[in-house]
Amino acid sequence: MPLHRIYHPLSAFSSSDKQKLSERITALYTDRGLPAFYVVILFTPIESESFFVGGKPTDKFVRIVVQHLARQLPNEEAKKQFSERYENAIAPFIKDKGYDWEVHVEEVPPEMWRENGLIPPIKFPEIEKEWARQNKPIPY
Amino acid sequence: MPLHRIYHPLSAFSSSDKQKLSERITALYTDRGLPAFYVVILFTPIESESFFVGGKPTDKFVRIVVQHLARQLPNEEAKKQFSERYENAIAPFIKDKGYDWEVHVEEVPPEMWRENGLIPPIKFPEIEKEWARQNKPIPY
Amino acid sequence: MPLHRIYHPLSAFSSSDKQKLSERITALYTDRGLPAFYVVILFTPIESESFFVGGKPTDKFVRIVVQHLARQLPNEEAKKQFSERYENAIAPFIKDKGYDWEVHVEEVPPEMWRENGLIPPIKFPEIEKEWARQNKPIPY
Repeated sequence: MPLHRIYHPLSAFSSSDKQKLSERITALYTDRGLPAFYVVILFTPIESESFFVGGKPTDKFVRIVVQHLARQLPNEEAKKQFSERYENAIAPFIKDKGYDWEVHVEEVPPEMWRENGLIPPIKFPEIEKEWARQNKPIPY
Repeated sequence: MPLHRIYHPLSAFSSSDKQKLSERITALYTDRGLPAFYVVILFTPIESESFFVGGKPTDKFVRIVVQHLARQLPNEEAKKQFSERYENAIAPFIKDKGYDWEVHVEEVPPEMWRENGLIPPIKFPEIEKEWARQNKPIPY
Repeated sequence: MPLHRIYHPLSAFSSSDKQKLSERITALYTDRGLPAFYVVILFTPIESESFFVGGKPTDKFVRIVVQHLARQLPNEEAKKQFSERYENAIAPFIKDKGYDWEVHVEEVPPEMWRENGLIPPIKFPEIEKEWARQNKPIPY
């Protein structure tokens, strides 16, 4: 469900950084009861000569695009809180290393969303819990 | 119009697989009368150490992001049918090879969509048919 | 804010082309008073065997996905004008070189958008001007 595309300079993250950052992002959702496998994170390295901020090539900027499907946050306050939790999750690997960064989160209507071809059980909390427990999509 | 971004493990698809899968996806739209050239499909290989599902690196997952512009499917039933047709189109190259996968389709308002700088003839079915026949954008 | 993802054939753009094209795109926004650093442009080369248009591999097509956050264009006329200005900006490096191309612009609600962890001052024109003057996000 949540898809995180992280565009970053070639040397921004070690394998271990990517592992730990992914775990921190994933926990934002599993803490709320969502199945872990819903969280997909794609790291995309971009060469300096292909990464422009303000019309200048950069190797000091990280751009993150997040898409949410399983949950639409109900109001401005909830959205604000999510952004704050997200910023805390990523800070050790971006802010604290001296990068500039930008994040936005999109909320995509879930009608044409499928996991292994199955309609995710957004409206069936008990089934969603079972998906979370088994950490995979199960026909229902 | 439909843009399909397919994020996949390095070894998931041969050139021939990509060719055949693209043809199957394209047919979903040309069968409905849309110009073939509207269908753009981008395969993006992602290394295992940059592809995380549930906080773990993976080489067994395919994530597909689809964007529709030319047509907004009018209701929940039409959306459901599209997802079913899509799943059938991709199954031989993903499900049947043992990958896990996730798809979502977004519907993007078409006001700022252009093909070779031209406003696509969404509201002019006869012109759209001509674009489909010639398989290229034609000034009108 | 505006994020431009430019998917292109391997040999479409030299480093100098990317530099100049980025400057032209950035100017579309700085001309309207937006901070230069809001404009992020990512060039993503796609191999011919992974880039399909109409079910056929191509090395003559450029696909651009633009996302706007800081401003929602208020009506159809404003959107049309933006698309025209955009087409003019990119023409020397795409149309004039014989490529086919497709662009679409999405308008994303800005509630969960952050620059270096800060809420961009969409509702505070004076602060936005200061961000533009200093070309960086400043706590306020």
